Amino acid sequence: MLIIDGLQYSNWSRQIFEQMHEGGVSAVHATLAYHETTRDTLTRFGEWNRRFEDNADLITPVKAPADILRAKQEGRIGILLGAQNCSPIEDDIDMVAVMRDLGLMIMQLTYNNQSLLACGCYESEDSGITRFGRQVIQEMNRVGMVIDMSHSAERSTLEAIEISQRPVIISHANPASFYSAKRNKSDRVLKAIAECDGLLGFSTYPFHLNHGSDCTLDEYCDMIARTADLMGIEHIGIGTDLCQEQPVSVLEWMRNGRWSKAMDYGEGNQNNAGWPAPLTWLRDNRDFPNLIQGLRQRGFDDESVTRIMGRNWLGLLERAATPSA
Amino acid sequence: MLIIDGLQYSNWSRQIFEQMHEGGVSAVHATLAYHETTRDTLTRFGEWNRRFEDNADLITPVKAPADILRAKQEGRIGILLGAQNCSPIEDDIDMVAVMRDLGLMIMQLTYNNQSLLACGCYESEDSGITRFGRQVIQEMNRVGMVIDMSHSAERSTLEAIEISQRPVIISHANPASFYSAKRNKSDRVLKAIAECDGLLGFSTYPFHLNHGSDCTLDEYCDMIARTADLMGIEHIGIGTDLCQEQPVSVLEWMRNGRWSKAMDYGEGNQNNAGWPAPLTWLRDNRDFPNLIQGLRQRGFDDESVTRIMGRNWLGLLERAATPSA
Repeated sequence: MLIIDGLQYSNWSRQIFEQMHEGGVSAVHATLAYHETTRDTLTRFGEWNRRFEDNADLITPVKAPADILRAKQEGRIGILLGAQNCSPIEDDIDMVAVMRDLGLMIMQLTYNNQSLLACGCYESEDSGITRFGRQVIQEMNRVGMVIDMSHSAERSTLEAIEISQRPVIISHANPASFYSAKRNKSDRVLKAIAECDGLLGFSTYPFHLNHGSDCTLDEYCDMIARTADLMGIEHIGIGTDLCQEQPVSVLEWMRNGRWSKAMDYGEGNQNNAGWPAPLTWLRDNRDFPNLIQGLRQRGFDDESVTRIMGRNWLGLLERAATPSA
Repeated sequence: MLIIDGLQYSNWSRQIFEQMHEGGVSAVHATLAYHETTRDTLTRFGEWNRRFEDNADLITPVKAPADILRAKQEGRIGILLGAQNCSPIEDDIDMVAVMRDLGLMIMQLTYNNQSLLACGCYESEDSGITRFGRQVIQEMNRVGMVIDMSHSAERSTLEAIEISQRPVIISHANPASFYSAKRNKSDRVLKAIAECDGLLGFSTYPFHLNHGSDCTLDEYCDMIARTADLMGIEHIGIGTDLCQEQPVSVLEWMRNGRWSKAMDYGEGNQNNAGWPAPLTWLRDNRDFPNLIQGLRQRGFDDESVTRIMGRNWLGLLERAATPSA
């Protein structure tokens, strides 16, 4: 089965790539940058070049959707790179094409805060897509860089969908109807994502789940079933948000970047400042078979399971991550 | 008389510094950056270091308000540096203190577009000061960097005034009641600037003037008199926005930065894309005596003229451009 995970940000190592193989994973959308500038993003690309070199028997870069199928044929994990923020392009429209040439297939327009393009879900108010943001969306459409609104606020998300000529995604989040969190999405947003032929990747990050780290596989698969009814089976996939082996310093970097002198706890708080405990049924990349079993038990047929586990992600990338004709 | 011009951005040369002397100018707030990144801003500081070195007989750097009086005693022009955008700090709160240490005394929170801090006057909607913006205002207050809202939108301006513990300025603009332009300010904003003990610098840029380049000295001084009634004589000064000897390429840089693939004409339009013709009574730095004469003819007494021409700027910098105790 083609298994594509729509978001991971781990402390990458040979061990983790081996676990991906053990779990039957075909391709992973790996986060390249959170707050990195253009220059710092190049360093991240350099680090990945080295990982590809050092682990060529296990992983291979994905720069076009077809590379995912090639990787599978070769028995390697395809790694597609994306940014959780627009910091890699700084204030420069020309950096969209430059980053796409380097292999940045997916980019979020905001990460929690207001960006130069759009508003993040942690700001108190959202005035929608900016003047620069409108041009960047057009340019992302042109070069085939997927617009991801996972950490964006609602109005900006709806406007991005309206402005974009190509599908828009939420790579990792859950319906707010399942669990009310700033990062989870309203039915209105989810329907708009479906209408633009986009995709929602379901998150397994405990802060996005009902009952947090105690959320059961049954609950999770039930959420997927309800969302399939809302969005259609072709517009959903997995985006685990797995952050394996990361120290708390990385969580603090994600939350604070360089913008805050005071400690910002993001989805946590002062008494719950660290990484959440992992789910017992998805501890790491080896546990994807549990998810497949859970979906089957919830009553999804084989066609639906293969769609959710990977085929929908492949289709989305074919629609949104190729250069415009 | 102490003459301080609250905004110039010229193609700096020895000739221009000589013209400043001829016009009796004591100090000028010179724009260091429009869209420059942190690194590029350092290059601009380097260029100014060289100008100070090469023209040490004519100009001297101002890094604290007292330097203005020192410069006058020495018979040199004091140059204080400011940024028309927050691009010099990028996304890094720590760059506020670093830039202040280098001599950046004044910074705008936005330049026409949405920034990471606030909204510019060319966006269609303004959601106010961002999470990062609140922290930056606090930090600017702490280190004594003056908050300038010349190119910001109305709500962001009012919120900045509310959040800031120190006076906020509009270094170069005019009342919208005099001439309705996106860059000119409502009475509500002007009153709030006065209430926070801030300052408005009157612009002589033709796009901010009634009758544009044909605006007469009488009209201009009449606008000043009306604004003095609204804001109080202690809250007004001059911010000419003189851009001497600049090529159109610089105007295009100011308007487009790196954010636009299409040409943005800013305050102009496709059929009026270049620099506006200068005023006949303020062609360059030699013409400040005309302004003094115009103010006297309009009926301002000596005390008021010295306030408008420079003393108010000095007082503002003493209130807002020194480190917090």
